[in-house]
Amino acid sequence: MFKEAIDHRPKNNFAYTYSEDKMHIRLRTKKKDIKSVNLIFGDPYDFVNGKWMYLKSEMKMSGFDELFDYWFIEVTPEFKRLRYGFEISDGLETTYYTEKGFYPEPISEIGYYFCFPFLNKIDIFVAPEWVKDTVWYQIFPERFANGNEDINPPNTLAWGSTNPTPENFFGGDFEGVINHIDHLVELGITGIYFTPIFKAYSNHKYDTIDYMEIDPQFGDKETFKRLVETCHQHGIKVMLDAVFNHSGYYFPQFQDVLENGENSVYKDWFHLREFPIQIEPKPNYDTFAFTPLMPKLNTENQEVKDYLLEVGRYWVREFNIDGWRLDVANEVDHQFWREFRQEVKAINPDVYILGEIWHDSMPWLQGDQFDAVMNYPFTTGAVKYFAEDTIQATEFTNMISKVQHMYPNNVNEVAFNLLDSHDTPRILTVCGGNKEKLKLLYVFQMSFTGSPCIYYGDEVGMTGDHDPGCRKCMVWDKNEQDHELFNHLKKLIRLRKEHQAFKENDIRFIEANDETNHIIYSKAAGNEEFIFILNNSADKLEVSVPVNGKDYTDIWTGKTYTNEATKIHLTLNSYGFSILCVSNHCG
Amino acid sequence: MFKEAIDHRPKNNFAYTYSEDKMHIRLRTKKKDIKSVNLIFGDPYDFVNGKWMYLKSEMKMSGFDELFDYWFIEVTPEFKRLRYGFEISDGLETTYYTEKGFYPEPISEIGYYFCFPFLNKIDIFVAPEWVKDTVWYQIFPERFANGNEDINPPNTLAWGSTNPTPENFFGGDFEGVINHIDHLVELGITGIYFTPIFKAYSNHKYDTIDYMEIDPQFGDKETFKRLVETCHQHGIKVMLDAVFNHSGYYFPQFQDVLENGENSVYKDWFHLREFPIQIEPKPNYDTFAFTPLMPKLNTENQEVKDYLLEVGRYWVREFNIDGWRLDVANEVDHQFWREFRQEVKAINPDVYILGEIWHDSMPWLQGDQFDAVMNYPFTTGAVKYFAEDTIQATEFTNMISKVQHMYPNNVNEVAFNLLDSHDTPRILTVCGGNKEKLKLLYVFQMSFTGSPCIYYGDEVGMTGDHDPGCRKCMVWDKNEQDHELFNHLKKLIRLRKEHQAFKENDIRFIEANDETNHIIYSKAAGNEEFIFILNNSADKLEVSVPVNGKDYTDIWTGKTYTNEATKIHLTLNSYGFSILCVSNHCG
Repeated sequence: MFKEAIDHRPKNNFAYTYSEDKMHIRLRTKKKDIKSVNLIFGDPYDFVNGKWMYLKSEMKMSGFDELFDYWFIEVTPEFKRLRYGFEISDGLETTYYTEKGFYPEPISEIGYYFCFPFLNKIDIFVAPEWVKDTVWYQIFPERFANGNEDINPPNTLAWGSTNPTPENFFGGDFEGVINHIDHLVELGITGIYFTPIFKAYSNHKYDTIDYMEIDPQFGDKETFKRLVETCHQHGIKVMLDAVFNHSGYYFPQFQDVLENGENSVYKDWFHLREFPIQIEPKPNYDTFAFTPLMPKLNTENQEVKDYLLEVGRYWVREFNIDGWRLDVANEVDHQFWREFRQEVKAINPDVYILGEIWHDSMPWLQGDQFDAVMNYPFTTGAVKYFAEDTIQATEFTNMISKVQHMYPNNVNEVAFNLLDSHDTPRILTVCGGNKEKLKLLYVFQMSFTGSPCIYYGDEVGMTGDHDPGCRKCMVWDKNEQDHELFNHLKKLIRLRKEHQAFKENDIRFIEANDETNHIIYSKAAGNEEFIFILNNSADKLEVSVPVNGKDYTDIWTGKTYTNEATKIHLTLNSYGFSILCVSNHCG
Repeated sequence: MFKEAIDHRPKNNFAYTYSEDKMHIRLRTKKKDIKSVNLIFGDPYDFVNGKWMYLKSEMKMSGFDELFDYWFIEVTPEFKRLRYGFEISDGLETTYYTEKGFYPEPISEIGYYFCFPFLNKIDIFVAPEWVKDTVWYQIFPERFANGNEDINPPNTLAWGSTNPTPENFFGGDFEGVINHIDHLVELGITGIYFTPIFKAYSNHKYDTIDYMEIDPQFGDKETFKRLVETCHQHGIKVMLDAVFNHSGYYFPQFQDVLENGENSVYKDWFHLREFPIQIEPKPNYDTFAFTPLMPKLNTENQEVKDYLLEVGRYWVREFNIDGWRLDVANEVDHQFWREFRQEVKAINPDVYILGEIWHDSMPWLQGDQFDAVMNYPFTTGAVKYFAEDTIQATEFTNMISKVQHMYPNNVNEVAFNLLDSHDTPRILTVCGGNKEKLKLLYVFQMSFTGSPCIYYGDEVGMTGDHDPGCRKCMVWDKNEQDHELFNHLKKLIRLRKEHQAFKENDIRFIEANDETNHIIYSKAAGNEEFIFILNNSADKLEVSVPVNGKDYTDIWTGKTYTNEATKIHLTLNSYGFSILCVSNHCG
């Protein structure tokens, strides 16, 4: 037995409160090393004649990745307190794993066991329920639609007349979004994430000048209010982008610092390392990356906090927005985000707080800061397997399992699962323009837990390389839109809404075949039982799907499979797929 | 190479900010599996021609326990940002370990590396500096000294006239502590931790009736103020016990609930599961353990929070106390403790916040909640090895190394290292009455990092079994005090004060010998280099101590060792010890 590979540490992804009375416990062991795991658990104070009273329950394997198996159990401690350990067997040896180490017999001193002292309600990770059912659509406002030419910025170019550059403008605005709300409703999306809309210098607006004002090229506050109301009337949530790590160069407070140096009343609003302030060749103040145009805000300063927290409250309170996406969230201090959460949730506990973090984000997802992060580990896996063809089936399923076990289930259920954005090449371009590959990828994205996001225009077949290529004007000419792709995605979104199993956290990889590069996975919820077969290959696939004797229907094609004992034989086309559903419960 | 045993996850004990500009990085590997580890690190945004610019530095092994080796490095990132990975070699194979897994070559995509996004000052774990230099003395006020017989509770017994019971009273009070301050000054302690002093029913006062009042048997607020001032004049800090998890049965708010049930205005102050309230056979409200006399407070309720946070502020603001020890701290919600820290530190950032947690406490030691916890893992190891003889040298050094690597170094430096308390048998009793064993244990306790604590009376040889035996009246009769033990401890405390090396976090176990049961460890600080040799055995020990050719002095005996090339030969008596110091720097 490889004891060195066995891992568990209470809280975080290993032991957490899933709901008011339910706890989840996970254990990690070396892959294929362990045959069975039992949880030994009881109340920390439940003694009879000096002997601790504990129960024993079998843990189930919830998945595996390249190196590890993961074991899972849900328990409901009567008095909301738990002490526990693990009985681990590899078939030859049985060991008892506690906080203090491994023992050949169950240890009798309760102090040795792992402890989850009390399930305090306020400490539970709780994200808004609506997020689990939301399909997002990301809009880069300058490029979605120009609905009011009167507010075009200077030198606005004709819509789509040329390729985007870092400096040019096409006049996208709020009126344009309102005008095209039917397009979004038809697709079926239920949330819009807007990249920044506040007054700023550039076309991307990440260089804020005034966080309390709408950029005039997008409209005024009245128009924005109307936009939010229009969205809400159509069942669409609205999320804005909060760029609090840094301001823009033309932020008046920073301009004051540039002008008055040490004498500026705003000198503590930034991280100035010395005076006089120097911009070239390298700034002598902290910035986003090494960009002198984006000075880092000192979010530990009380005045800055007061200002930014009021920004956080203002747009929720006055405009009823439903979410804040936090730009470069990892570089801002944890303390600021704790206060941000408190302040924003006090106005509306149903606001979704989403951090932009590209790496392992556990420290921000403990319940006191964010509801979710942009799920880039998901993105990386999905893009490499489906779009780039740089990894095979096994590596992909390992990556996905690893992501799933990095965080608690309640975190996974509201993860923000994007494929691309204004910061990456468009997904169809990454697919080498192969629409069939993208269609297959959408099947996976829409059947995976969390909150999927579509980047504007992807649904009609737009392409584009890295910024600025991925920021082209939205294609509104019906003749240039890919209706087949649109309808494919629309159908998937509808199925996701109709079937809870698509959204469930629990994904079981039944097969990952590196020779044919296909994967098979199951998802279930209530009575629903689904099996997904995805042929991620240019070759036709002949495959046997293990089933349990029930009748199945392919809910995509309507084809039925009856009286199959243990296998269903399928032939899938190049990049084809099948979504099998136990027939009685296909809805 | 056993990749499954290799572990690292940013923040917590693995990657943390040690000071404003310094980061500590640790890696865990299977014991004796790895020959060398290099850290690969750089700024996340430092690219030249699209290539990430990184440095490579060797990590040192900082210790090992039963299963693992631990590797350590301190780095100072110029722009307070860090991306990093590990180059790991076992002599045959070299692997590159990143957040996404293991690779045979250094990975080129920066997104794969571990990330510590920004060293924000406010997120650093910072405990009061004075704690590192403090030696604590725990007083159970009812039993330390009776200085004012006028305020004796009813039925007070003559001092030490009989054994303590759970119900009897001997009249210990504040005046008694003031009267005996010279005893404490002579011993050299610099902090007193008082178990509860607020108005309560029992002799132990953990069943609070009024958190804003002194229990009249101890004195009044004026006397308490004088006590704190007396302590401060003698360089002694004062820490009080905050019992916020539960109130006492006679807490008026709980009495109101018992009387008025569902109609009580205080019904949300507790966790009442149903009405009518039931006390027997099992309470139908949440309690400490299953004790109906200690109803759990609802620390999520705003009124309860307002009340308890004011308690936290009041005794700091009005009486200038220096620390709060938090009873059953693990069962109270994290959110409450975050607010408690904010409120208390706003009045005096130098107040020490110490949680009573018996198990792994990482979730409370991230900088936003406690400064320290009562270091029971240290207690367990030290008691089992030195006092109980239930483990041997190797297991002891493994346990100590494991504790040291469970937490960041800045956490270890202020840990509260107790040997016993009002909740355990007295340490001399656990030593089977063998004073030589206790003297040896004190050598270890006083040469270990953190903040050691002496339980009142241990220093003069008091004995006693579990509560109530360990709560006897302090022995003031000089003829009954053990002066040799007192002087031994006094000398150790003086040495600890004079030599920074005693307090340093870095302990290197040079030898742990299970045959003879002796240990050898070194500690160093600045110019100071110490080697401790502890013979934890009834047998005489002949031992060779590896040295580096310098001249050494035993600072305990004054004996010198010169011109020893690589070994010093020592003969130690039963439970004897030697404290060797490089002669030029013994002070």
